[in-house]
Amino acid sequence: MPHAHSSRPVVVDTSASPQAQLRPVPLAAVTLTDRLWAPRRQQNLEVTLPTQYRLLEKTGRIDNFRRAAGDLDRPFAGRVYNDSDVYKWLEAAAWTLAEAPDSPLAARVDALIDLIAAAQQPDGYLNTYYARERAADRWSNLPDHHELYCAGHLIQAGIAHHRATGGTRLLDVARRFADLICDTFGPGAEHIPGVPGHPEIELALVELARLIGADRYLAQARYFVMARGRGLIGGRAYHGDHAPLGAWARLTGHAVRALYLCAAAADLDLEADAPTYTATLERLWRQMVTRQLYVSGGLGARHAGEAFGDEYELPNRRAYAETCAAIASVLWNWRMLQRAGHACYADLLELTLYNAFLPGLGLDGASYFYANPLASDGAHRRQTWYTCACCPTNVVRLLATLPGYFYSVSDADTVWIHLYAASEATITLPDGREVLLIQRTLYPWDGNITIEVLSAGEFTLKLRIPGWCAGEACDTSPPSPADVCSLATDRVLCEVLAINGDPDRQSVVPGDYVAVRRHWRPGDAICLRLPMPARRVAAHPHALENAGRIALMRGPLLYCLEAVDNPAHDLRDIALPAEAAITHTYHRDLLGGVVTLHAAAQARPPAPGWGECLYGEPQPPPPGQPVDITAVPYFAWANRAPGAMQVWLQHLP
Amino acid sequence: MPHAHSSRPVVVDTSASPQAQLRPVPLAAVTLTDRLWAPRRQQNLEVTLPTQYRLLEKTGRIDNFRRAAGDLDRPFAGRVYNDSDVYKWLEAAAWTLAEAPDSPLAARVDALIDLIAAAQQPDGYLNTYYARERAADRWSNLPDHHELYCAGHLIQAGIAHHRATGGTRLLDVARRFADLICDTFGPGAEHIPGVPGHPEIELALVELARLIGADRYLAQARYFVMARGRGLIGGRAYHGDHAPLGAWARLTGHAVRALYLCAAAADLDLEADAPTYTATLERLWRQMVTRQLYVSGGLGARHAGEAFGDEYELPNRRAYAETCAAIASVLWNWRMLQRAGHACYADLLELTLYNAFLPGLGLDGASYFYANPLASDGAHRRQTWYTCACCPTNVVRLLATLPGYFYSVSDADTVWIHLYAASEATITLPDGREVLLIQRTLYPWDGNITIEVLSAGEFTLKLRIPGWCAGEACDTSPPSPADVCSLATDRVLCEVLAINGDPDRQSVVPGDYVAVRRHWRPGDAICLRLPMPARRVAAHPHALENAGRIALMRGPLLYCLEAVDNPAHDLRDIALPAEAAITHTYHRDLLGGVVTLHAAAQARPPAPGWGECLYGEPQPPPPGQPVDITAVPYFAWANRAPGAMQVWLQHLP
Repeated sequence: MPHAHSSRPVVVDTSASPQAQLRPVPLAAVTLTDRLWAPRRQQNLEVTLPTQYRLLEKTGRIDNFRRAAGDLDRPFAGRVYNDSDVYKWLEAAAWTLAEAPDSPLAARVDALIDLIAAAQQPDGYLNTYYARERAADRWSNLPDHHELYCAGHLIQAGIAHHRATGGTRLLDVARRFADLICDTFGPGAEHIPGVPGHPEIELALVELARLIGADRYLAQARYFVMARGRGLIGGRAYHGDHAPLGAWARLTGHAVRALYLCAAAADLDLEADAPTYTATLERLWRQMVTRQLYVSGGLGARHAGEAFGDEYELPNRRAYAETCAAIASVLWNWRMLQRAGHACYADLLELTLYNAFLPGLGLDGASYFYANPLASDGAHRRQTWYTCACCPTNVVRLLATLPGYFYSVSDADTVWIHLYAASEATITLPDGREVLLIQRTLYPWDGNITIEVLSAGEFTLKLRIPGWCAGEACDTSPPSPADVCSLATDRVLCEVLAINGDPDRQSVVPGDYVAVRRHWRPGDAICLRLPMPARRVAAHPHALENAGRIALMRGPLLYCLEAVDNPAHDLRDIALPAEAAITHTYHRDLLGGVVTLHAAAQARPPAPGWGECLYGEPQPPPPGQPVDITAVPYFAWANRAPGAMQVWLQHLP
Repeated sequence: MPHAHSSRPVVVDTSASPQAQLRPVPLAAVTLTDRLWAPRRQQNLEVTLPTQYRLLEKTGRIDNFRRAAGDLDRPFAGRVYNDSDVYKWLEAAAWTLAEAPDSPLAARVDALIDLIAAAQQPDGYLNTYYARERAADRWSNLPDHHELYCAGHLIQAGIAHHRATGGTRLLDVARRFADLICDTFGPGAEHIPGVPGHPEIELALVELARLIGADRYLAQARYFVMARGRGLIGGRAYHGDHAPLGAWARLTGHAVRALYLCAAAADLDLEADAPTYTATLERLWRQMVTRQLYVSGGLGARHAGEAFGDEYELPNRRAYAETCAAIASVLWNWRMLQRAGHACYADLLELTLYNAFLPGLGLDGASYFYANPLASDGAHRRQTWYTCACCPTNVVRLLATLPGYFYSVSDADTVWIHLYAASEATITLPDGREVLLIQRTLYPWDGNITIEVLSAGEFTLKLRIPGWCAGEACDTSPPSPADVCSLATDRVLCEVLAINGDPDRQSVVPGDYVAVRRHWRPGDAICLRLPMPARRVAAHPHALENAGRIALMRGPLLYCLEAVDNPAHDLRDIALPAEAAITHTYHRDLLGGVVTLHAAAQARPPAPGWGECLYGEPQPPPPGQPVDITAVPYFAWANRAPGAMQVWLQHLP
């Protein structure tokens, strides 16, 4: 089994999952050649991963392993969960090596694996905080000391290294720890009745079960998910322990914990003959996208407890929207998508990748956002590192695995195209045939996509028609997971699809996939013309901070105003008339190459009567002063001179 | 000295303060006979204090003293700062005994004092957490273990008990601890260079200096204030240690800590020959009232760190606005008022008493709010107690001392009237003459106030003309502390003042005091006719959650809608047309007797297009449905059936 797998490095391998309608394609099957993702993935290899390794060394995170291995005599350094950063970096490096085996990273990875193996206890236990003088205290603080969380990332790194390189050294270390954990936790007097304070190992154990084919890992993951909400770790919402998942009314508590738990539950259902959690997850997902989601895709409104807020609690300047929560949302949506192929999950996945994940990484490839506010006075800037470095090491993981999210396959001979970007793909159909596809497009800057088929034979291509290209308020038909994509409608698009130049007459519905089945000849081309006008997006009136305001979007991208482009006025006072035309321009040399938006707007500062006053009689706003505004993609903000940023603009009906 | 004082129980005795223009009047000089405060103060004696004592016993707070005294063998119970709750209760009980010496409370107070004295260490140290097995660890965690904070409340209780009863037992205990603290903390190698993580002892030491006349207590208080911001306790804004007070740009960090520190600095300046902090405090006060103040007077926007927010960061449903922060604001504003007699401090003090302090206590006299949101879905309810019980025990303190905030005196023969309520006062002028005043009024329900003078002779009465009765947006003249009262204007009111029925022709300016000097004859009456129409109050446009909304106020009172009175619609959707007349009615039997407001409004629910959608195209609001609304005073909310509450209503220009 392992070797069959190691030849096809799949990030999440649902190939044999009974409940999955879709199957993943190997990471190596897709090569991105676009101007947005490809350069960042190259930068990930050349800048981000090496920079992070130096920081892991500098902050003592790697010394912690040397200490645990007995090679170094000094106190444990940093937070109790610092091991996880090393594992996450290692996972990202391993995936990257699959594409760049000759990278100098390879030696670092091998040395690090030796060190990790040396730090493992004889019985398989491995955590550098609970080593040496604290060895006797292992498992003594499940809610907050993250041993199982770290173990999860060790297992993910072991799986990644094996799938990417075929090597088994780290995988063996991970398996030994996984076996110890299975022997240790569970029901019955012979076990510790406990669950991790921070989910992650559940995902890792499910993936390990997929790789090894051992049911015990799956059973252990199921125990960790099912035993939550019984108060085994204190019963707090912060830990997701306030109620069993099936009884949750909506996502609450620590956002990353809650979303990892949902992703794990989705994984369990993919592996089960009958789903246990899918109805719950669909309900929670719907609550989330209709009550708790930032327009950026960001999740988690509260700094206090890094938590989800109440419904419509979406402060902008005080938004938390942790980068890790966006990554967790990608993991969850991907698993929901594999199950049934509902495009709404791919829509949210795409929205999140561009506008909630990508802002977490600076253009320099060496600075990061932990929180992602939607408005700023200029004080919020990316940092080169964080004492809690969960986000930076999660960013390199997701960038390394990004190509794995572009395609799936299903049935005998169907290829699902979820994401668009200039790329080449060699996809093995379930029936064993190989299909070569080339995406030619400037997406996300342009909505024209040509998919060139270089293989002969009959098979189906399913193309995602993004919900955003409906460009209308969402429909009001009885909602189901498939139609609560915030921007989806049931409007049919015309003249969007053409094959070899001939318009395809079938109906094309935003927020759904369109299937094209035919006898393909090499050189056949599908032209997808996704309308991509700039859009004004309003928020539900109960999202009070956005009342009377709109955000600008174009295609999958959210836009914002930055003071550096709009220096003349307080950005909070910019108002955009409903009739103002919005134009766009591509700038090859700006912010790595972006399309900017332009409009004739008004500046409407507070009436002079306000003066130095916080409360007073209602006063009509003064007449606006004309001002030309320039908006840049939100993901690219805070990469130039520090200054204010504003997503939501006043709307003049 | 002490005995001179004990005969006149002054809460804050600035009688001899070189920088104070105003002098306090003794607590016993004023007897409230009104329908709002008087019943609550009676309830404080009969219900709240006894109930709290039972809870202090039940939660082990008093057992902690028995344990420290060696009478009980059990672990310390609760939070490290639990002693402070016992001291705060004792201070409140002591002040109350001054008016009700025969209350059964007297025996409890005496017994409690015996217990506290027994728990004191031989060297004067007294903290029940650092007793017995932890005795050696005293002063080991100044930032967060609150020994000095607790000591401050012990000293306040000792002063209160002495001033109220003439007894010296508790005062002696307090002095011994105060002397130890003076010997322990300060500059130089022989001292611990440290400051309290939570201010309070500074206020207590200044008051102790006023009572005892010993400079060392004043010097110690000055050290604790001046040594802040030097990183002695970690340099965090949470502790007010991020910078010296004079360098603060605005109030930040933990709201109660910051406000106690400002009150202490104001106290120090009252005692200094030349002010050190006044310019800073006036600047910080102005920043606060123009950027950080809730319309209720509440302070501290953030749950995270119980902290002040950024400018215009004023979430309503997530407002923190801790009851203790309101009380701290009263303490600070009172000290600012005594210095120079600027009415703006009295305006904020009054706003805070009615709308930020009073909501903290339930009508039952036995339930409390810790946080005071300005909107609720109905889930936020008062609790009978909190693990951190700072607010309940602060509430009884302020209620017990309330009469002390009504009057001051100055010069040879001037009486300042700060607050209005049916009451009788016997005030000793600085020149020694006694002045009897009776306030006849239904205030705050009615703006007509008759002040009957029952003494003969020439003296000056200074009556506060509240800024709120200007009822206009505040002026835009260059702000000074005197004219940044949010609602103050320089408009002159006419026919507001009459003496013995004859209109007084002098100009009466809202937000200032009007002086009436004459030869008074017993039976002379000043009639003050404060215009009290219901007012629409808007917030600065940069307070985003309130954009396009107004709050209803009448006189000093903020109003709100409760679902129990307005069940038909979602309160977030209520819109009030600018031209809608607002009527008022007094209900003797509602909520202890309140004036309610009524208007013909509209319900404007989100357009149907929103359906289950969070983001979509901008849509015009649907036509409103007519609805009659009833508003109740904000302080009285959440005393009936649980349900939604809303302060800010949509404004239809």
